[in-house]
Amino acid sequence: MKVFIVHAHPEPKSFSSALKTTAEEVFRAAGHEVLVSDLYAMGFNPVASANDFGTRADPEYCVYALEQRHGVSTGTISHDIQNELKKLLDCDLLVLNFPLFWFSTPAILKGWLDRVLVSGSVYGGMRFYDRGGLKGKRAIVSFTLGGQAHMLDTNGIHGPIEGMLKHLLQGTLAYTGLDVLAPFVAWHVPYVTNEKRLEYLDAWRKRLPSLMDEEPLRFPSLDRFDENLYPLAPRRERIEQ
Amino acid sequence: MKVFIVHAHPEPKSFSSALKTTAEEVFRAAGHEVLVSDLYAMGFNPVASANDFGTRADPEYCVYALEQRHGVSTGTISHDIQNELKKLLDCDLLVLNFPLFWFSTPAILKGWLDRVLVSGSVYGGMRFYDRGGLKGKRAIVSFTLGGQAHMLDTNGIHGPIEGMLKHLLQGTLAYTGLDVLAPFVAWHVPYVTNEKRLEYLDAWRKRLPSLMDEEPLRFPSLDRFDENLYPLAPRRERIEQ
Repeated sequence: MKVFIVHAHPEPKSFSSALKTTAEEVFRAAGHEVLVSDLYAMGFNPVASANDFGTRADPEYCVYALEQRHGVSTGTISHDIQNELKKLLDCDLLVLNFPLFWFSTPAILKGWLDRVLVSGSVYGGMRFYDRGGLKGKRAIVSFTLGGQAHMLDTNGIHGPIEGMLKHLLQGTLAYTGLDVLAPFVAWHVPYVTNEKRLEYLDAWRKRLPSLMDEEPLRFPSLDRFDENLYPLAPRRERIEQ
Repeated sequence: MKVFIVHAHPEPKSFSSALKTTAEEVFRAAGHEVLVSDLYAMGFNPVASANDFGTRADPEYCVYALEQRHGVSTGTISHDIQNELKKLLDCDLLVLNFPLFWFSTPAILKGWLDRVLVSGSVYGGMRFYDRGGLKGKRAIVSFTLGGQAHMLDTNGIHGPIEGMLKHLLQGTLAYTGLDVLAPFVAWHVPYVTNEKRLEYLDAWRKRLPSLMDEEPLRFPSLDRFDENLYPLAPRRERIEQ
């Protein structure tokens, strides 16, 4: 199995980095091929712009998604994007590992998503959700945050964590066709004891070997919608389900 | 009134840029003070890192939020952050204007949020939601997207747009204490006629003057939670409401 870990934390000695290293070690020890993109260490450029394209479909007006298609098909898209895209298309399991910044990824990782999840290869037209370009691969996000679990459950002040992360779990990862697993969450990290941190690492170490066997989260299927993306079943029936 | 527009689109001739310029013109014509941060034009650095701090609270280990507090209190946080923070703290209305990338902001704007919404000034401890540091100010997001309205309503394939944007509307803007208005959404922009685009601009132009009078969206209140952020009302009662 090929594992691709994309890691983004500004502090190399962080607990988030320990989660990354743990995943790397566990997968390597099990004989899997592991590639790691440590975005801070790489100085990854997160800004999607016209500079990403060597030649342009339209040099006068940059529609980013159209230029992505042109850039991939002509092989003129920026080399850093080509490199990351190759790793992504080759992998069986994608791990995004980061500290939660504003209930989302740090900008450097958001820019990896903006630039590497290219239109055409990864999604486009009716190729999304269960028809997405990355169908057959799996993804998991593992993240640290300052908040506590009770703040992000059904009755919590922020509501369920899956709701706060819908843009990422559904709108990004599941959108591209990936089978998305329940996140691995290390709660309250800046405030917990070292013992608790070791417990998190241990739980992560124990979970990693079964990631390919876990039941993924459920997301919409295009089979339930018509060619204009209107629901196929009547509204009433959908509500009663 | 002071209006602060933060704009992020890679193409200066984009329709998103026209929304930005329209807001700028309408507010100026009404006699308001308008500041615009055009992040692409500024070459804004979106990567939160130890480089943001001239002196460090802890030179050995960077906890970004703690260094933000230290950097603001000592005046040694990076100048670009100081400049943006001053504009933010001075404004009455914040407008974030951008194309939707992966159901969120482009990375350059995510990095503005990561770096400028500093711990201490903007939030911290129990200062969030209706006790957030930006209480008394308003915010609106105006964005363009390729999707159509029926794809982001209750029965739509993606579910309601407010759900996809929860991390931004609630988890970021409302979290800091801002009164968040319903987004201004220009649907299906790459595919619509020029007439439709002019209709969007007209609707935006008509809506802008009343932004300070609109009823904001509703978000959680800290009054409903105890000092450890457990719900004050019994679970049963909360469910029945």
